[in-house]
Amino acid sequence: MYINIYPNTSEWNTLTQRPYKDNSLVSERVKEIINSVKQNGDSAILRLTKALDAPSLERITVGLDEIEFSKTRVSVDLKNAILLAKENITTFHTSQIKSEPKTETSAGVTCWRKSVAIQKIGLYIPGGSAPLFSTILMLGIPAQLGGCEDIIICTPPDKQGNIDPAILFTADLLGIKTIYKVGGAQAIAAMSLGTESITKVDKIFGPGNQYVTEAKSQIQSLGVAIDMPAGPSELLIIADSNATSSFVAADLLSQAEHGPDSQVILVTDQEEKAKQILAEVTIQLSELPRKSIAEKSIANSRIIILKDIESCIQFSNVYAPEHLILALDNAETYSEKIINAGSVFLGRYSCESAGDYASGTNHTLPTNGYAKSYSGVSVDSFVKKITFQNITKKGIQNIGPSIELMAAAEGLDAHKNAVTIRLNTIDNER
Amino acid sequence: MYINIYPNTSEWNTLTQRPYKDNSLVSERVKEIINSVKQNGDSAILRLTKALDAPSLERITVGLDEIEFSKTRVSVDLKNAILLAKENITTFHTSQIKSEPKTETSAGVTCWRKSVAIQKIGLYIPGGSAPLFSTILMLGIPAQLGGCEDIIICTPPDKQGNIDPAILFTADLLGIKTIYKVGGAQAIAAMSLGTESITKVDKIFGPGNQYVTEAKSQIQSLGVAIDMPAGPSELLIIADSNATSSFVAADLLSQAEHGPDSQVILVTDQEEKAKQILAEVTIQLSELPRKSIAEKSIANSRIIILKDIESCIQFSNVYAPEHLILALDNAETYSEKIINAGSVFLGRYSCESAGDYASGTNHTLPTNGYAKSYSGVSVDSFVKKITFQNITKKGIQNIGPSIELMAAAEGLDAHKNAVTIRLNTIDNER
Repeated sequence: MYINIYPNTSEWNTLTQRPYKDNSLVSERVKEIINSVKQNGDSAILRLTKALDAPSLERITVGLDEIEFSKTRVSVDLKNAILLAKENITTFHTSQIKSEPKTETSAGVTCWRKSVAIQKIGLYIPGGSAPLFSTILMLGIPAQLGGCEDIIICTPPDKQGNIDPAILFTADLLGIKTIYKVGGAQAIAAMSLGTESITKVDKIFGPGNQYVTEAKSQIQSLGVAIDMPAGPSELLIIADSNATSSFVAADLLSQAEHGPDSQVILVTDQEEKAKQILAEVTIQLSELPRKSIAEKSIANSRIIILKDIESCIQFSNVYAPEHLILALDNAETYSEKIINAGSVFLGRYSCESAGDYASGTNHTLPTNGYAKSYSGVSVDSFVKKITFQNITKKGIQNIGPSIELMAAAEGLDAHKNAVTIRLNTIDNER
Repeated sequence: MYINIYPNTSEWNTLTQRPYKDNSLVSERVKEIINSVKQNGDSAILRLTKALDAPSLERITVGLDEIEFSKTRVSVDLKNAILLAKENITTFHTSQIKSEPKTETSAGVTCWRKSVAIQKIGLYIPGGSAPLFSTILMLGIPAQLGGCEDIIICTPPDKQGNIDPAILFTADLLGIKTIYKVGGAQAIAAMSLGTESITKVDKIFGPGNQYVTEAKSQIQSLGVAIDMPAGPSELLIIADSNATSSFVAADLLSQAEHGPDSQVILVTDQEEKAKQILAEVTIQLSELPRKSIAEKSIANSRIIILKDIESCIQFSNVYAPEHLILALDNAETYSEKIINAGSVFLGRYSCESAGDYASGTNHTLPTNGYAKSYSGVSVDSFVKKITFQNITKKGIQNIGPSIELMAAAEGLDAHKNAVTIRLNTIDNER
């Protein structure tokens, strides 16, 4: 980790930049995959899955027998852990549901807004070396709280054509039975175009590698919505003199192990503390199973020393991190000043991995600076809010003349006429 | 308007399709414009604006003197109409603001979510033949209710280099003083890249022609968010036997005058009524100033006769219209069955133009079938919701073991370790 000591604010723009990556090759390959799925449907899907994941796969649909068998393959302890996480995620996301009252804006003009579930939802769940069953909870629970009934999952099979039992167990726990053994860009293509076996969905959620991310970006032009643009995972920690070095180091590494392109940043006003944390990182790193990955992302990462905690907060707001840990004595007070971040963890015991699994908040969050304008996934992500209005005779008499004037001033006379014809009819009824 | 009588549901997919438009030429031109603004900033902007809009323009910034002068050029009646619209839009959008409580998901684990304004907002306001000052109200009011302080407007000047006074008056009414005389793809490029005079923003809102729409789609990959993907405006009306033919015809035409590619659809179970409405359309069309535009979009539009109102509702849900008028006796009851639409207008007097200007609902809505997954603009569009969590010593003891199990099962040991190191420290403190 490179240490920057008291950089000028003029350097902040550079220091907050994410590493640029040319993905034009990925983009071309993804275009080919999407076209291939468009033209050949299921047969393209099966061919790609055999070539990339499971050579002997014969059908892409997960059978009910496989789901049943998965229940015997997950330990009771893990089942209980998943149940606790499910409960906390449900509790927190339930607090996001609110109905809105009808509002009379002028006499006789009543307007309201209603949340209606998005009909067809596709979840992409990464498999392979890290089978992210936790992501099923993070997407499936708010989807169901939002009222979505038609939810499908695509997840890549292993070499033998199997899906990790914890993924099947978690899907079954939420009652999601439609699961396909398809990964990568071909899964995204299938869910957005539809094939003989896989339904076309209205919105696709879930993390993935650069092919998945690029495919999600490309299929938006086909009329399918996505949860958010995605990039490598990131964490920024602001630490003060009382922060526990070993905790901060462990948190930095927990993010660094995601992938070689993950980015972790430590910002502090304590140079000595920064050195202690760096020493701890080196010690803990040496013992990690995913050491070779974490090493690479730690090499890309930075420590920034600034003159006070206020400046650290300002720096973080410019960076707009996906995850932000405030390892500060007065974390809750400082949290009031956070204006750009995905999810914020306050104090000594709020480690980022708590939010990844079981505290209740969502772990699907905006990366790559998108926290400036995007929110993480919530119940809102699975509904659209439709507005309604009911205008009475009295109502159109109240606001009609204003509409006529405004429409005429915008040069839209047919807009005006829709009001005039009603007002004239009301006049003639007298 | 082509009349389809009792089409099979197997034909609905075709009947709900929007006209396809190849925009590859537009796409290439927009790429060039974005590159040009990237390389030459203000000088590219000025060159393009002179070439496309105002040949003698010397500066792109609207002066305070121009804003002051505009106040003398708007009639008192129009000012009052704009004030009424402002009040109703404010009332309705205020009803969307809610704070959420803190939630204790497990003992010692507190999670909450807070709405924080997106910092820098750019509004694109079309000028030219239809100066859409109403769009300033529709975007500026929820932006300010969401807490946005830094709002800029780009709008194309006329041939003389002037902006319509109603646009300047409305912007001033909301206290928005930073206005640029720039239109088209170059305006979108400037707001997303930043130039010497124009600030780079975090999110861009507003309607526009196909160049503006394409530019908004392209700049998303630069890390700038947009309100929603856009297409030509559309209206679907469901009418029953008691619907007033002249009202329905006026509503169809109010949408048809937007542009030659607008789409209007009438769905009804009454063949005779459909013919009456069509006759009314012909009569009213002949008197419209924008007749030549409305004629073209009416030619592209359809009347669908189905066996009952239930089927009409189902058809509408497949089409997912931007605007939906329920010209029905029991409109409010039927409205419960609407699952895909941008904004719904109930009954005889709720004309679509009311929602365009003054009833209080927003007029920036999803088109092109996006109503299946997107909401219209609201206060939500101008904020992001950041999650926070505060976990106590007791809290991490409660949920920590579950996190350890889940992280280990996903093969993410550094995630596990961030918990283990804390639990061990707590144990050692005893």
